[in-house]
Amino acid sequence: MGHMREIRGKTMKKVLFATSALVLSAGFASAEVAVSGDGRMGMIYDGNDVQFASRARVLFTLTGESDAGLSFGAKFRVDQENYKADPYRSAARGSAGQIWISGTYGKLSMGDVVSASEAAIGDLYEVGYTDGAVAFDSEEISYLTADGNNLGQGPAVLYEYGINGFTFYASATDGSDRSWGSVTFGDNTEDEDALSNKVAYSLAAKYEVDNYNVGLGFGKHGDAKEIVLGAEGKFDQFSVKGVYAHYKDRSAVDAFAAITGKNPITNAAGANVTGDYNFKSTIGLSGAYQADALLVKAFWRQDKFTTDVVGLSNEKYNSYGIGADYDLGGGATLAGGIIDTDYLQDTVADLGIKFKF
Amino acid sequence: MGHMREIRGKTMKKVLFATSALVLSAGFASAEVAVSGDGRMGMIYDGNDVQFASRARVLFTLTGESDAGLSFGAKFRVDQENYKADPYRSAARGSAGQIWISGTYGKLSMGDVVSASEAAIGDLYEVGYTDGAVAFDSEEISYLTADGNNLGQGPAVLYEYGINGFTFYASATDGSDRSWGSVTFGDNTEDEDALSNKVAYSLAAKYEVDNYNVGLGFGKHGDAKEIVLGAEGKFDQFSVKGVYAHYKDRSAVDAFAAITGKNPITNAAGANVTGDYNFKSTIGLSGAYQADALLVKAFWRQDKFTTDVVGLSNEKYNSYGIGADYDLGGGATLAGGIIDTDYLQDTVADLGIKFKF
Amino acid sequence: MGHMREIRGKTMKKVLFATSALVLSAGFASAEVAVSGDGRMGMIYDGNDVQFASRARVLFTLTGESDAGLSFGAKFRVDQENYKADPYRSAARGSAGQIWISGTYGKLSMGDVVSASEAAIGDLYEVGYTDGAVAFDSEEISYLTADGNNLGQGPAVLYEYGINGFTFYASATDGSDRSWGSVTFGDNTEDEDALSNKVAYSLAAKYEVDNYNVGLGFGKHGDAKEIVLGAEGKFDQFSVKGVYAHYKDRSAVDAFAAITGKNPITNAAGANVTGDYNFKSTIGLSGAYQADALLVKAFWRQDKFTTDVVGLSNEKYNSYGIGADYDLGGGATLAGGIIDTDYLQDTVADLGIKFKF
Repeated sequence: MGHMREIRGKTMKKVLFATSALVLSAGFASAEVAVSGDGRMGMIYDGNDVQFASRARVLFTLTGESDAGLSFGAKFRVDQENYKADPYRSAARGSAGQIWISGTYGKLSMGDVVSASEAAIGDLYEVGYTDGAVAFDSEEISYLTADGNNLGQGPAVLYEYGINGFTFYASATDGSDRSWGSVTFGDNTEDEDALSNKVAYSLAAKYEVDNYNVGLGFGKHGDAKEIVLGAEGKFDQFSVKGVYAHYKDRSAVDAFAAITGKNPITNAAGANVTGDYNFKSTIGLSGAYQADALLVKAFWRQDKFTTDVVGLSNEKYNSYGIGADYDLGGGATLAGGIIDTDYLQDTVADLGIKFKF
Repeated sequence: MGHMREIRGKTMKKVLFATSALVLSAGFASAEVAVSGDGRMGMIYDGNDVQFASRARVLFTLTGESDAGLSFGAKFRVDQENYKADPYRSAARGSAGQIWISGTYGKLSMGDVVSASEAAIGDLYEVGYTDGAVAFDSEEISYLTADGNNLGQGPAVLYEYGINGFTFYASATDGSDRSWGSVTFGDNTEDEDALSNKVAYSLAAKYEVDNYNVGLGFGKHGDAKEIVLGAEGKFDQFSVKGVYAHYKDRSAVDAFAAITGKNPITNAAGANVTGDYNFKSTIGLSGAYQADALLVKAFWRQDKFTTDVVGLSNEKYNSYGIGADYDLGGGATLAGGIIDTDYLQDTVADLGIKFKF
Repeated sequence: MGHMREIRGKTMKKVLFATSALVLSAGFASAEVAVSGDGRMGMIYDGNDVQFASRARVLFTLTGESDAGLSFGAKFRVDQENYKADPYRSAARGSAGQIWISGTYGKLSMGDVVSASEAAIGDLYEVGYTDGAVAFDSEEISYLTADGNNLGQGPAVLYEYGINGFTFYASATDGSDRSWGSVTFGDNTEDEDALSNKVAYSLAAKYEVDNYNVGLGFGKHGDAKEIVLGAEGKFDQFSVKGVYAHYKDRSAVDAFAAITGKNPITNAAGANVTGDYNFKSTIGLSGAYQADALLVKAFWRQDKFTTDVVGLSNEKYNSYGIGADYDLGGGATLAGGIIDTDYLQDTVADLGIKFKF
């Protein structure tokens, strides 16, 4: 559970102290708020123009421990708190960031959590100083649940439990888009058969031994299902990761929206698609090579879509990316990447510096 | 003035240091920013469905002291800064959070302050891990001024002065919803007779001795008035608090909006009410019992409405709540509550964990 | 480069420590997040009414250093992060706050940076506890580029290099309002001749010796140009600063919007202006006198507009301001100001306390 270790690492590194007295003593308040940040600056090529692109963000990591040794915590970024602007991006509403408890029996997280499948398998390696954002994050696998979907049901849960190299994951939404108190998510429909009132859940397992891991995930929301298989290995300076996702009865309009941020799909004549248009599968492969401060990364993915729409045929969308990171030390990394994707019908690129604070 | 002590306590616990040199020396920069937080995770029953409900928040507490010993400070949460999304929920616009100066002559606060009545008397005991949010905070007394009202006039002021067990409070808005500079609140009307251009003020006093306190408050905005009386006592492990609020010429549509977040009131046929519909009074009672880590709390309130609307009769709305908190130590509390309120015409409940960081 | 020194000063004063071990050792994590704040409370006179006006803000300053000694950092306030509410006021989108790298060859900043002209010359002295906000910041020179303009092109860059008392500045937008990835600025037009797709740039230089400095700046966006000259001197307790800005082919509607926040200009009959209405020049003068804790400041400016609109004549808009600050120590300053400006056709004033945390 590298994720948990990472959180703890950050907290150790940037914890806020209690009082000057406490700093000099061995005693330590168990509950604290750590403030860290990241940023990036550089240039992107959007397929037509070269543009400046930068950002700065601050992350809060809240941690504590109960008398009985139960760990708890929460984290969210300043830009994940949009209380009045967007009910689906507010840590104070539970629709962004996460809060968790953790003990002998595993870790239970709530909020804008990833699905079990995503927690077990994750995405392909991201390239460039914008971490793939220049190409709509085309290194990201489109998981059926969580991952930007099912937001209308409010906070979701993710449970993780690790034993003997195995980690088991389970995630679910609550199957209700009803409002309560002053918190409003979704369309508040009373129709229990509506997709927005169906539990979206996922189950997954991961096995890690030495430098290898394999993961298997299953997800379901209404009629739509996913099975995702992933494997990763590190051999000396090389890392390789492969992911295969198979979907059943998954509407391609949603998938398209999830992947590209564009909705809906139009045919060659520019008219909207009518009929079924399903997202069938994704196969993805990524590799990395580390030589001292230099890290070279690449990925390829192919998404298959099937359709019975008149005048349309089944389609394969390919995306390729390659990039290099150069670690400047102290939290700064020079990075650049080139991504070619059928979704953008373009080759895009970026070059800049990433920072961790 | 337990409120002030609490602020200072938090600051002492989580103050950010000045420099490594300063940490090791006795000297200490007088102005500082403390970062603390809270969170909760669990399940609510909204009357129809069980739903996940979680949140995480971060609070900034800014404090300093002038050369002459005048204390000053400010506080606001990240979710209270919605600069562009909501002019009425932005600490940078003075419409959320508070800023204050404090000295021998009392404490003067400005911003989204509570009214004098509310500062002296407050609300009934809140139950459940959502602190009553699952039932639209039905433990909250609906004070006439501040407390979500009068926001169109921008920042309000609250003055507090304590002597010999007495604390005196005075609060007011500025009686103007005009815009100035680039700050816009309200509808900027020039009609000086409009309610939005009338000062909303409140005067109150509280007397504390040992484990008892009584408070009396008066409020006025336009023709509407309130008189609120509160009393609280602690007897060994028991606490009891009662509040009686009497309103005069207070439109029930506004009161309903303040209490329920729903507006306007409709009659049985679903048509909007025409005619007078006044919020007449609230009587509320709450009690608590503490046994080691366990705290059991309950409240009851009854709101009376009078009307001359044809086909409607005077109404009594009852709300009941009971809950229990179990302190897990380190800032974590297991809590659950059940609330039945005529406003929701439903029984709702919650069960989860609250955290303080 | 007083600006850089100020940033470093704040960081030194309020840096968050790494771990308790690190605090006691000489070692120090190079990357950190400092949290500071400011606030104000008092009363303003808007020309018609006296109103309460307050605010509280928190600033994050992120700093680090690469192994080779390259400094880097970023800063933004909580109220500058409006991710979903306003794409032009989000540090996480690069449209608010700044991020920079700095080394032997100068400092390169990206984000919502000031223009080269503004960096070299700046504004007139601000008066009052609202720092001129009560009068729409009429002490601010209306620079042609950056400074609220050109936001549709996303992040801009500013380069600063200092040698032997000289500091050279260059700033530019990227000349493209196209969206990329999930980041959207501007209207995403493909028309390369549109003003929103033209680079807005500025070049400037400043020379400082002892207590004197002079600055010269040039700016261009499309057909519009600016030349700005500024000079400042400190003589014992007196400071004087003068600015002259000359504009060519600068539409007055935009300028008016930039200065007053009101748009567009209407003639006496209330009809919108048609024809050319150009912002021709600004001449401004400000002075300050410091006597122990007391600081008296004043400014005057005159903006000239030329027009060929039938029924309108060339216009001069004058603005005057005077104010006094009294330093209370510990970060608190009592301040008041009076500003009379033709833009408001009114005299406005403020009186209150400013805080630094």
